[in-house]
Amino acid sequence: MGRPYEAPLEAMHAALDQAARSAGLTGVPGCAATVAEVEDAVLQSAARIAREVLSPLNHRGDAAGCRLDGRGVATPAGFREAYQRFCADGWPALAAPQSLGGQALPMLLGAAVTEMWGAANLAFAMCPEAAVGALEALRAHVTGELLERYARPLASGAWTAAMAMTEPQAGSDLAAIRTLARPDGTAWRLTGRKIFISWGDHDLSDNIVHLVLARTPDAPPSVRGLSLFLVPKRVPAADGDLAPNDLRAISLEHKMGIRASPTCVMAYGEREGARGWLVGPVGGGIDCMFTMMNHMRLGVGVHSTGLAERAFQLARAYAQERLQGRDRAGAPRAIIEHADVRRMLLTMKVLTHAARGLAYTAAAALDVAGADIEPAARARALERASLLTPLVKAWCTDTAVEVASLGVQVHGGAGYIVESEIEQVYRDARIGPIFEGTNFIQAQDLIVRKVLRDGGAALAALLADIEASAHALAAQEEWPRRLLAECGELRQAAAALSAASARESELAGAVAQPFLQWLAVVAGGWQWALSAHAAAGAAGTEPSRRAARDGARFYAAHILPRARAHATQVAAGARLLAGTERASL
Amino acid sequence: MGRPYEAPLEAMHAALDQAARSAGLTGVPGCAATVAEVEDAVLQSAARIAREVLSPLNHRGDAAGCRLDGRGVATPAGFREAYQRFCADGWPALAAPQSLGGQALPMLLGAAVTEMWGAANLAFAMCPEAAVGALEALRAHVTGELLERYARPLASGAWTAAMAMTEPQAGSDLAAIRTLARPDGTAWRLTGRKIFISWGDHDLSDNIVHLVLARTPDAPPSVRGLSLFLVPKRVPAADGDLAPNDLRAISLEHKMGIRASPTCVMAYGEREGARGWLVGPVGGGIDCMFTMMNHMRLGVGVHSTGLAERAFQLARAYAQERLQGRDRAGAPRAIIEHADVRRMLLTMKVLTHAARGLAYTAAAALDVAGADIEPAARARALERASLLTPLVKAWCTDTAVEVASLGVQVHGGAGYIVESEIEQVYRDARIGPIFEGTNFIQAQDLIVRKVLRDGGAALAALLADIEASAHALAAQEEWPRRLLAECGELRQAAAALSAASARESELAGAVAQPFLQWLAVVAGGWQWALSAHAAAGAAGTEPSRRAARDGARFYAAHILPRARAHATQVAAGARLLAGTERASL
Repeated sequence: MGRPYEAPLEAMHAALDQAARSAGLTGVPGCAATVAEVEDAVLQSAARIAREVLSPLNHRGDAAGCRLDGRGVATPAGFREAYQRFCADGWPALAAPQSLGGQALPMLLGAAVTEMWGAANLAFAMCPEAAVGALEALRAHVTGELLERYARPLASGAWTAAMAMTEPQAGSDLAAIRTLARPDGTAWRLTGRKIFISWGDHDLSDNIVHLVLARTPDAPPSVRGLSLFLVPKRVPAADGDLAPNDLRAISLEHKMGIRASPTCVMAYGEREGARGWLVGPVGGGIDCMFTMMNHMRLGVGVHSTGLAERAFQLARAYAQERLQGRDRAGAPRAIIEHADVRRMLLTMKVLTHAARGLAYTAAAALDVAGADIEPAARARALERASLLTPLVKAWCTDTAVEVASLGVQVHGGAGYIVESEIEQVYRDARIGPIFEGTNFIQAQDLIVRKVLRDGGAALAALLADIEASAHALAAQEEWPRRLLAECGELRQAAAALSAASARESELAGAVAQPFLQWLAVVAGGWQWALSAHAAAGAAGTEPSRRAARDGARFYAAHILPRARAHATQVAAGARLLAGTERASL
Repeated sequence: MGRPYEAPLEAMHAALDQAARSAGLTGVPGCAATVAEVEDAVLQSAARIAREVLSPLNHRGDAAGCRLDGRGVATPAGFREAYQRFCADGWPALAAPQSLGGQALPMLLGAAVTEMWGAANLAFAMCPEAAVGALEALRAHVTGELLERYARPLASGAWTAAMAMTEPQAGSDLAAIRTLARPDGTAWRLTGRKIFISWGDHDLSDNIVHLVLARTPDAPPSVRGLSLFLVPKRVPAADGDLAPNDLRAISLEHKMGIRASPTCVMAYGEREGARGWLVGPVGGGIDCMFTMMNHMRLGVGVHSTGLAERAFQLARAYAQERLQGRDRAGAPRAIIEHADVRRMLLTMKVLTHAARGLAYTAAAALDVAGADIEPAARARALERASLLTPLVKAWCTDTAVEVASLGVQVHGGAGYIVESEIEQVYRDARIGPIFEGTNFIQAQDLIVRKVLRDGGAALAALLADIEASAHALAAQEEWPRRLLAECGELRQAAAALSAASARESELAGAVAQPFLQWLAVVAGGWQWALSAHAAAGAAGTEPSRRAARDGARFYAAHILPRARAHATQVAAGARLLAGTERASL
C-alpha cells in the first residue's frame, strides 16, 4: 500500500508561526512561549503516531469497514489497539485543561496535530475529534457533578462522543427534529431516531457520550423548541459502574468513503426511554450544540487540509518514481519532469498551503479569544474566528476534493485502482463538503450571520489585514496589486448585498456560495502574501525565499483569477432568482 | 434504487438538429432526410432499452462486479441477457454499412444513442463501443478474407472487441511497448502482457477481437516500430468453428467505479504465442490504432455527457421530492425551491447541454467528412472533427466529474451513501479524464497537432463560426459580446504560442490544459448562442425560447467567466516553466 503518511513538519512549523503572528497570538503573554517550548516535541511525537500507527491502518480500514451485530458495532482489525495507543500517549487531552488531566496546549497546536490525524486516517480521526468537541460543549454549558462525571473520561479518551442531530426528515432543517425528551425526576427520557451519527456506536471505548438534540413536551415547533441532552451509551453510577442505557445502533450506512468510521442509525428509547441529562437551558439546544458544531466545522477543515496534503504527497511520490518517455539524452524521464504534471502538483501544493494557513489562523484566533487579555481584543479575535470558521470548513473541504482529484489524475490509470491510496483519498475527501453543515450552510452562515449582521465590520477588518499583507509585498512583486483590487471589489459587493438583501429575502442564499468562494480565494492569496513576505525577511533562507515567492506567483496566476469568475456569479445572483423559471429545470 | 434513466428526448432532438446545421450535415444530400425519417423511432427504441434493460442493471452490476476464475471472466448477473437483447434489437450495427448487415445510420444519430447507453450503464456501454471502434479500424486498414471473416460478427455484436495498448512501463508513452510479434507463415505469433484492457475477457460473446499494439523483430525503438495486430480470443476456421488462441486474462483490477466492466491484465502467448494478423502496414500500428482510438475518444465524451445528464436527472428528482424547511405560508418546501439548489441544478444543466452540443457537433462533422460530397468540404469537415475530438473527450469528461459532484452535493448526506445511484455516477465519471488518453494527452493533441501544426487554420475556422453565432444573437442579448472578446483573445493567444513554442520546446505542454479548458468554455458558449438563437427564431415556442435564453444567460454569467481565469493561466505558462524549481516540489 505504498509509503505511510509523513507529516510535513517544516511546512507546519512555518504555518504555525505565520498563523500565530497573523492572529495576534504572539502578543498573548505566555502563549507564544508555550507553543515555542513544546511545538517541536509535540509535532514530532504526533508525526510518529500518524506514520506508524494510523496511516498503516488507513487502507485496511477502508477495505474492511465496520460490522454491526447483536453486540453492537465492531471496528476494523487494529483500530482498537491503535486507539488505546493514541489515548495512552495523551493525544485526546492535548487541548484539555490541566484540571482535567489535559495539557492545555493552544488550539493552534491542536490544529497541526489534528491535520496529521486527518491525513493519516480520516475515518479514525473523526472519533477523537467528536470527543474534543463534546468536551468543549460540556465545559461551556454544564457544571457540577454532571461535568465532573463526564469531563475527565472524555478528556482522557477513555470515553468518546457522538453528535446526534440529523433525523430522516430533519437534515439542514433542524426545526423538523422530532426526537422527544420527557422529564423524569432530575433527568429525562429520550425517544426517537437519529441518522448519520458518526461513531454512534463502536468498540474502541467503554462508553460513548451522545449529545442529542431533542424536543421537550409542549416546546414551540421552531429550533427554539430544541434542547440538548447528554445521553450516554452506559450510565455511570457514583461508584463508577456502567449500566446499559436504552439506545443502540440499528443499522450502518454503506458509504462512498470514510468506511472505517461507523455511520449509525441510532434508536433512542426503544424500551423505557434513554436516560439523558440536560445540557444548557431548555430551548437552548441549538446554541449549546453550536459550541460543539463550531469545533467540528473547524476540525473538518483541518482534516480536509490533511487529506489535501496526503494527496499531494502521494502524487508527488508517484510522479517522482513513475518513468514515462525519455529526455533529450535518451534517459528515462520521471513524469514530474513534464510541465503539466508540475502544473498539477504546484496547484495541489499552493491550494494546500493556503487552506492550511486559513485553518491555522482560525485556530489561533480562537486561542486569542480565550486568552486572559483585554476584553476588546478577545472580542475582535472571536469575531475573526467566527468569520473564518465557515470559510475554513467550506473552502478547505472543496480544496481537498479538488486536490484529491488532481492527485488521481497525476496517477493516471493507477489512480483509479483501489490498491492505490489516492483512490481512497478521493472518496474520503468527498464527505467534507457535505457533513457538519453542507458547504451551502457554511456560505449562508458566512454571509447572513458573519457579514451582513454586523454591517460588514468583521469582513472589513479581515480585508484590511489582507490589504496590509498585499501592501507589505507590493514593493517586490506585481501580483499583490490584484489582491488589493479584489479586496476593494469584495468590500463593494458586500455593501451592495447589504443594501439589496433587505429588499430581496432570497438574495443572500442565491449569492452565498460564490461569495464564499470569492472571499476564500482572496484569503488564500493573503496566506501566500504573508508567506512570501515572511520568507523575504531576514529569517528566510534562499531556497525557502524562492519557494515562497514562486508559490505565491503560481497562486496569483493559477488560482487568484478565479476570484473574477466568482465575482461575476455574485453580480448575477439577483438575475438567477428572477430569470430562471422552474420550468426550465 | 430509485427511478431508471429516462433519455431526455426533447433535448436530444434539439441538439441533433443544432449539430446537423452547425456541421453542415443538413446540406449533405440524403443524410438529413435519413436522420429525419428514422430519428424519432430510433431514439424512442433506444430510450426503451436504456430504461428497461440497461439502467436497472447499473447499480447491481456495480455492487456485484466481475469475477475471474479458471474459465475466464464472469460478468454480473443479467449482463449476458441484456447483451443478447441489445444485439437482437440491432444496436451494435446501427452505424455499420448495410453490406455488413448494418443500418448505415449517421454517426450523429449514433452519438445520441451512445449517450443513452453511457447514461444508463457506463460499464456495459464500454463493451459495444469498443466493437464499433474496432470495426472502423478493420474497415479502414484491412481487406479481403480477413475483413470478411471479422467484420460481420463485430457488426452484429456476435463478437466484441478490446483495444490492447498499455503495458506496465508504457502508459502515455507508447514507444515503450515491448509486446513482440514474430512472423509465422501468413500470420504472426504474439507474446507479451497488456494492462488496463477494458472488456479484455468476459462471457457476453463467443469471441473477442483484440487489437494489439506490438513490436516486430528488429523494429526501431520508437512508436514507428509498432504494428497493429488482430488477435482473436478464438481463431475462426473457414467452416466457422472457433479454436482457442493463446491468450487469457490473468487478473482483474479492483476499481473506483465502472466495476461491472472487467479491466483485465492480459497475457498473450504464454505457450506457443498468440496467433495474430497484421492490421495495416508493418510500422503503421499507431496510425491504425488511432482510427479506433479517435472513435473511442469521441465515445468517451459522449458517454460522459450521458453521465452528466444522469447526474442532473437524479439530482433534480431528489430536489423535487426532498422536503426541507417551510415556505412563508408554513407549507413544506422542496429543496428545489432554494436558490442555491437551483444554482447547482442550473450549473449541471447548462454544462450538460454545452457538452452534448459539442459532442454531437463532432459526430456530425465526421458524417460530413465521410459523405459523398466535394473533397474540399469533406476535408474541412474532417479538420473540424479532428479539432473537436480532443476538446470533446477532455471537456465532456471533466464536465461529467463536475456535474456528478454537484449531483452528490444536491443529495447532501444521501449522496454519500452507496444505495443512492448518484454515488456510483460520481465514481464512474472519474475514469473519463484518465482513459483513452489522459486529458493532458488530449490537450497536447489539441495544441500541437490540431492548432499549431496547421498554423491555426482549423482554430480560426472554428472561432469564425463561434463569432458568427455571437453576432447573430448580439442584437437581442448583451452577453455574446463577451463571447466575441474571448474569440479575439484566443486567436491572439494561439498566435503568440505559435511564435513562442518554436523557441521553447516545453511551452506547448505547459499551457496545453488551460488552453483546452479556455477554448472548451468558449465553445460551450457557442452551443448556447446557437440554442438561444434557434429558439428565438420562428420555430421556437415561448417556454423553449425562455429556457434557451435563460440557460444561455446563466452559462454566460456562471461558466463563461472561467475563460478569463484560463487565459491568465495560459499567459503564465512560460513562467511556470522558468519559475518553479523542482526543489519547491
